[in-house]
Amino acid sequence: MFIVMHQGHTEKELTDILERLTQMGFTGHVSQGVERTVVGVVGRTYPELKETLELWPGVDDVVPISRPHKLVGREFQPQDSVVKVGDVAIGGEALVVIAGPCAVETEEQLLQSARAVKAAGANILRGGAFKPSTSPYSFRGLGKDGLELLAQARRETGMPVITEVMAPHDVELVLRYADILQVGARNMQNFTLLDEVGKAQMPVMLKRGLSATIQEWLLSAEYILAQGNRQVMLCERGIRTFETYTRNTMDISAIPIIKKLSHLPIIADPSHGTGKWYLVTPVSLAAVAAGADGLMVEVHPSPEHALKDGAQSLTFENFEQLMARVVPVAASVGRKMA
Amino acid sequence: MFIVMHQGHTEKELTDILERLTQMGFTGHVSQGVERTVVGVVGRTYPELKETLELWPGVDDVVPISRPHKLVGREFQPQDSVVKVGDVAIGGEALVVIAGPCAVETEEQLLQSARAVKAAGANILRGGAFKPSTSPYSFRGLGKDGLELLAQARRETGMPVITEVMAPHDVELVLRYADILQVGARNMQNFTLLDEVGKAQMPVMLKRGLSATIQEWLLSAEYILAQGNRQVMLCERGIRTFETYTRNTMDISAIPIIKKLSHLPIIADPSHGTGKWYLVTPVSLAAVAAGADGLMVEVHPSPEHALKDGAQSLTFENFEQLMARVVPVAASVGRKMA
Amino acid sequence: MFIVMHQGHTEKELTDILERLTQMGFTGHVSQGVERTVVGVVGRTYPELKETLELWPGVDDVVPISRPHKLVGREFQPQDSVVKVGDVAIGGEALVVIAGPCAVETEEQLLQSARAVKAAGANILRGGAFKPSTSPYSFRGLGKDGLELLAQARRETGMPVITEVMAPHDVELVLRYADILQVGARNMQNFTLLDEVGKAQMPVMLKRGLSATIQEWLLSAEYILAQGNRQVMLCERGIRTFETYTRNTMDISAIPIIKKLSHLPIIADPSHGTGKWYLVTPVSLAAVAAGADGLMVEVHPSPEHALKDGAQSLTFENFEQLMARVVPVAASVGRKMA
Amino acid sequence: MFIVMHQGHTEKELTDILERLTQMGFTGHVSQGVERTVVGVVGRTYPELKETLELWPGVDDVVPISRPHKLVGREFQPQDSVVKVGDVAIGGEALVVIAGPCAVETEEQLLQSARAVKAAGANILRGGAFKPSTSPYSFRGLGKDGLELLAQARRETGMPVITEVMAPHDVELVLRYADILQVGARNMQNFTLLDEVGKAQMPVMLKRGLSATIQEWLLSAEYILAQGNRQVMLCERGIRTFETYTRNTMDISAIPIIKKLSHLPIIADPSHGTGKWYLVTPVSLAAVAAGADGLMVEVHPSPEHALKDGAQSLTFENFEQLMARVVPVAASVGRKMA
Repeated sequence: MFIVMHQGHTEKELTDILERLTQMGFTGHVSQGVERTVVGVVGRTYPELKETLELWPGVDDVVPISRPHKLVGREFQPQDSVVKVGDVAIGGEALVVIAGPCAVETEEQLLQSARAVKAAGANILRGGAFKPSTSPYSFRGLGKDGLELLAQARRETGMPVITEVMAPHDVELVLRYADILQVGARNMQNFTLLDEVGKAQMPVMLKRGLSATIQEWLLSAEYILAQGNRQVMLCERGIRTFETYTRNTMDISAIPIIKKLSHLPIIADPSHGTGKWYLVTPVSLAAVAAGADGLMVEVHPSPEHALKDGAQSLTFENFEQLMARVVPVAASVGRKMA
Repeated sequence: MFIVMHQGHTEKELTDILERLTQMGFTGHVSQGVERTVVGVVGRTYPELKETLELWPGVDDVVPISRPHKLVGREFQPQDSVVKVGDVAIGGEALVVIAGPCAVETEEQLLQSARAVKAAGANILRGGAFKPSTSPYSFRGLGKDGLELLAQARRETGMPVITEVMAPHDVELVLRYADILQVGARNMQNFTLLDEVGKAQMPVMLKRGLSATIQEWLLSAEYILAQGNRQVMLCERGIRTFETYTRNTMDISAIPIIKKLSHLPIIADPSHGTGKWYLVTPVSLAAVAAGADGLMVEVHPSPEHALKDGAQSLTFENFEQLMARVVPVAASVGRKMA
Repeated sequence: MFIVMHQGHTEKELTDILERLTQMGFTGHVSQGVERTVVGVVGRTYPELKETLELWPGVDDVVPISRPHKLVGREFQPQDSVVKVGDVAIGGEALVVIAGPCAVETEEQLLQSARAVKAAGANILRGGAFKPSTSPYSFRGLGKDGLELLAQARRETGMPVITEVMAPHDVELVLRYADILQVGARNMQNFTLLDEVGKAQMPVMLKRGLSATIQEWLLSAEYILAQGNRQVMLCERGIRTFETYTRNTMDISAIPIIKKLSHLPIIADPSHGTGKWYLVTPVSLAAVAAGADGLMVEVHPSPEHALKDGAQSLTFENFEQLMARVVPVAASVGRKMA
Repeated sequence: MFIVMHQGHTEKELTDILERLTQMGFTGHVSQGVERTVVGVVGRTYPELKETLELWPGVDDVVPISRPHKLVGREFQPQDSVVKVGDVAIGGEALVVIAGPCAVETEEQLLQSARAVKAAGANILRGGAFKPSTSPYSFRGLGKDGLELLAQARRETGMPVITEVMAPHDVELVLRYADILQVGARNMQNFTLLDEVGKAQMPVMLKRGLSATIQEWLLSAEYILAQGNRQVMLCERGIRTFETYTRNTMDISAIPIIKKLSHLPIIADPSHGTGKWYLVTPVSLAAVAAGADGLMVEVHPSPEHALKDGAQSLTFENFEQLMARVVPVAASVGRKMA
């Protein structure tokens, strides 16, 4: 951490700062520039220290230089993490495809979807039993009944299942049915929930928050790892910007950035990332070309009858076409299908 | 809700749409424009219907026209809601000031702060016992011990107390100590928590999410009212934008907009809205002039020793000066102090 | 255009509106919904009409339904526009690569770059002679001398040249040297400049503004076409968001959206879209997979000595590697190289 | 400027960096932290240097510490600049009000407006003769005829006149009619135009760009001062965010920030800052309370017949009411009316 002094600071302000740093167990290291005096703060600094130092007399700005995350970083673990879910390895050489309906609605809807996405080459089944909903008057999911249906679909198709958990007190229940716990975008900074899934011995997919920086996202993942759960994958699902044509703006650069900063696998969700079914295929191909370890795609037997997110859901036929187009793009960047 | 047809739509697409609408219990009302054909959908529409209709052949766009919120709206209740907390009325003629430290740290820190803000004219004491923290390695609050200290400060000063609740399973505990439950910005769409505070018989302050639209914010408030709790106030605390000079961008227009759309009281939080203590006073004055029903301000005996948010905390002296400047501005817009 | 009436509007307000519409040459078409009354406005509406109608008594909201652009739209011209620049066709089957330094600095720098990018497979040379610069004290380009060097590089390598024009009065000068006029992001709504390049008989590349919606971008292109110049291509170069890790957020969805709404070719600029050289290759591959008609990439003999944008410039070696990786991805989506 | 080394950097990378810095005329100042090595770069650094240094082997990040603006800064000139326009002083003790129609439409419209705003207490008349328009098919202003009408209104009312100049080649023309040249938001980084108004001996109002940071805005003002024109005032008119209820998000904090960083006067434009006439008064009061030196407000004899921006224009009656409410708020923060 560095303290940048005001241009007109006094000598006393500088010596006071050095004394205070010493009292706090740090060493101050003065550097006289042409325009500015800077004090390097040597020791085990922490993010909140910046706010304290900014208030000291004579200080103009405080610049942190350490990255606040630890366990999720490449410095901590240089090699890629591979999360195993049944036979499926996420984060390895093969591209993983997660597909299924936004929400579990009926037995028929879910089983049809599960069979169709499996036939088209998907590896993992998705389906929401607990659904976040902007309005209290909209569909909020089947709850435990939805989890039962997911378990049935797993038995029948053999596919592992991912589903969202929205509340700390539901983790125990969802754990009994799911193979991967999903933490949704709106809960990316629900720290109590992060702690709870961190205590679970099960893979977790952490979606990026609507307005979360990459740094904040990694720190939320750090919460889970800090509780002892290393089976974490990240999911880029678009961020909120001024553009209204799409539901969100897919941050394609986030994929190579996560690969650079972290060892955790990164999945792309072009359904939420765009909000429009006809954009899902081109953005899926883009995500694979950019280095994503997997895709998560919403598929529905009849999108126009979907209770949620119909506009961004693919029909079975559209999903087959997507898969047909994904294979050569994956191959072109040296990846096979899981 | 209106269906805008594609320019080259066929006659059959139009008749199919009318038939489907009828099957769903709606009436379709065709309007031939110069460039476009539009079908008005008459009946009790709901937000999700848009997604369904968008997928029908021949449809270019679907435009909802009803506002999705109900109980929080001025249409539902034209007169202002006034939330009573002990002797303090929030949302009435008088301006309410909530002040205190970001986090409860020690007995001395909290009691000193409580006495100082009361002496300067504050009406309600704030202090966090459960603190959201971006990093798992930072201070996360004293928990139950912090609540005990808040209760002690209330006993001593007579001021009601507001404190944050972060998890549904903590509501019962926090209820026993607080006079107002605060739902933080990161939890604005933690729907399980909203349900839970909606069941509580206690005033709730709902902060706006970092990237929440005004419509989404009102719908989150609607969750609480829909559970039967009408004692809700909103708090504008800045939104996330591209500007990095401030921690957030205070959306000053949100104050008159909320007054227009809703009957709920609106509080301004210039501490989080700016992130810098020297901006708190001018932005407080602005919020009062724009019509806010109250201010929430972070105050600390020694901001540079604060465990959280020191950079945006006022000293006792600065807070006194703020109060001295707020009084004439409040008077200039026809408001007295609570 | 639709007028949504207030819930409690009076009968007189409605009849007044119908009368006024008639006086203005429109026909009002009333539709009684369950919650709202809506008036369809039939006739040749225009965007500004919305603002007028919103002010009429009894009106709650006004919803436009026509798209304001004409000549750039797929409705106007269903088949793709192909812009010819010498032997290079932009917008056809083949992927076009534009490469070169951000700014023209010296004869040696430019010629070395031109030879290197040509050898690696680039089709068009880029280089700025007039450079926008945030600070008045930074390098602003060589001006006419830079144009001369570009002409020399074209003579030597045979590659067509693209360069930016920043002021209406410079169009005539730049025209004499360039094969494609570039309008930069900061000038996307410099309407005087758009008019001027619209009068030129030369291909124009219009970059998207930092905070321009897709609709605004298309309307700026409409300016150029409206002046008679149909040789226009668009360039997505990232938008401004809250994320600070990258210089801009590359809006990958803009590529398929432009292909859907417009017949104009779309180029991707991953150099500005990311601001970091090590992100340029993955984002280039993503753009090609998403359907871009071309790439524009900054290349410099020695990025660390570049006068501008060194951090996002590729070395010759990095550019060769990029090209080697682009070829198979282009093939995988059915595209050959130009 | 500081170089933060990678955690695993080699000794050779460090010595190479020191050698290179010496060759470039800088001194490198090494500081060994617990986790990181940092090199202070001592000498006259410049913003672009960051990009160069970032590319050197072993470098993880480069942190600039000087502010890039000079002439506009408080360090350069501690006391407030006061811009004189006829009898009106902008930036002094008195609050200045600029009012008038968005666009000059007719003699009657302009003269009526001029008389009405003068009668209500406005000090300066606004009116656009050259109008930026998103669509090429919309009203773009009366041009020179509009300027003539402005001159006529000045003769009749004695009020100085502000009007926008959109192109460098129009500066000379507009100069002959205007008392203040306005540079619009879309032209904030039209550097050729900034140079040109910098050469004019006339007051300039520089509006903030839709997605301009405060730093970029100050650097655009620096362009004008660097050309020798010190009569510059800034205008906050809202920034583009994700919120769609308002046309822009008024950045109220920008007012005290500009006062802190710069000596230039700051005007608030609540008409563009909100886009809705019923928000103009509360946001005007907020801006005055936050310390603005003036307001710029759009007023029209009949907003519903306005050719531009009717939705955000006040009627004469509304403007009178605004003025009646501004006076006590201005007084409450120690300001009288100009």
